[in-house]
Amino acid sequence: MTYDLWYWPTIPGRGEFVRLVLEAGGIPYRDRAREEGAEALMKDLASRGEREPFAPPYLVDGDFCIAQAPHICAWLGDRHGLGAGDLPTDLWLIQLQLTIADAVAEVHNIHHPVALMETYEKQKAEAARAAEGFRRDRIPKFLGYFERSLAGREWFAGSKWSFADLSLFQLVEGLRYAFPRRMGAVEKDVPGVVALRDRVAALPELQDYLHSDRRLPFNENGIFRHYPELDAE
Amino acid sequence: MTYDLWYWPTIPGRGEFVRLVLEAGGIPYRDRAREEGAEALMKDLASRGEREPFAPPYLVDGDFCIAQAPHICAWLGDRHGLGAGDLPTDLWLIQLQLTIADAVAEVHNIHHPVALMETYEKQKAEAARAAEGFRRDRIPKFLGYFERSLAGREWFAGSKWSFADLSLFQLVEGLRYAFPRRMGAVEKDVPGVVALRDRVAALPELQDYLHSDRRLPFNENGIFRHYPELDAE
Repeated sequence: MTYDLWYWPTIPGRGEFVRLVLEAGGIPYRDRAREEGAEALMKDLASRGEREPFAPPYLVDGDFCIAQAPHICAWLGDRHGLGAGDLPTDLWLIQLQLTIADAVAEVHNIHHPVALMETYEKQKAEAARAAEGFRRDRIPKFLGYFERSLAGREWFAGSKWSFADLSLFQLVEGLRYAFPRRMGAVEKDVPGVVALRDRVAALPELQDYLHSDRRLPFNENGIFRHYPELDAE
Repeated sequence: MTYDLWYWPTIPGRGEFVRLVLEAGGIPYRDRAREEGAEALMKDLASRGEREPFAPPYLVDGDFCIAQAPHICAWLGDRHGLGAGDLPTDLWLIQLQLTIADAVAEVHNIHHPVALMETYEKQKAEAARAAEGFRRDRIPKFLGYFERSLAGREWFAGSKWSFADLSLFQLVEGLRYAFPRRMGAVEKDVPGVVALRDRVAALPELQDYLHSDRRLPFNENGIFRHYPELDAE
């Protein structure tokens, strides 16, 4: 069985959270829009009928289709044994995953605070103001929360990585790309989060992927964007 | 067994999505912060240790605690038979629930586009710009999506209401409160969504609740706020 993953082909975005689970789990998939382009994605999306996803990413397995990045990650975790294996912990991992998704949505809001359908350049002043509070209050709040949730363990669920660990890695990578100066100042307060990030980066299961061109670099069309004017210590 | 629900005591907010599931499902619960106040909520939250929620609402059952409104709704649906009962449809209901949560987050962003920790009054100009695109593009996009997802059925899952139907009702109620002029113009294009809203409002299971003082009115401290200057046809 090979899944079809559909996501915008030129950005890591929310698709990357799903891709990391597929790659680290050794789960066969085709990255359809990277093979066939954004038009193929839009055509596929429009063809999905009553249970169409609201937006990419979505994952297809025959007649079955599932959307919403944290939902896909949790479902893959359940189906492929990439969770904790006990219900309360698996539910908690989903809770963490949803909190990571909330952080990702806030990151997007920084460069698009007032006009979702327009470019960053048309809302630079507003973005500068949004970035200020995000840097000062929200980055430490989110990362401090994950630090406390790890509580010194190697992985959220204890001795084994899960989809939520992979996603925290991607959040840290994205924040480092978008806010390198601020992250430089914050990271010393969240050593457990940084160590987890390093542990994911070193996972044998991910070495091939992370050094391949399947791993898309961050860029200024995506969710995590580096605009130097939005960053500061 | 009686659950403890913890949420800010003076606003419907995200807690209301959980409350509607509890009430319509006839599930015993105590609304702890409404009985004991916001300070008791903050104290309880701070006492929860490694698996503390990032934010209210959260639901407690003995040692077990679950947070993130869409996650709580889905979990209650599973545990109390308030979903569809077949896995693909239940997964799809969660997907809808997460999309409703995305819409709710966007609504909050309208009155707090650039400074999460400050008041609306300190970001009125930015809010006015954010509201423009939300009214024009996003309200029709979200409601049109749910209209197509309903595809003429009475309920998302067919013949029986689920947690997702209750949440769509609350989203429509909130949008009507916050953007009455815009909703007056949009609703004619989404008759299935409006009919579902009416069906939930008429559910025998909810009559007592909806007419009780347990049902909190919308107000300008919550997520759905009525600022006439942000509304237009």
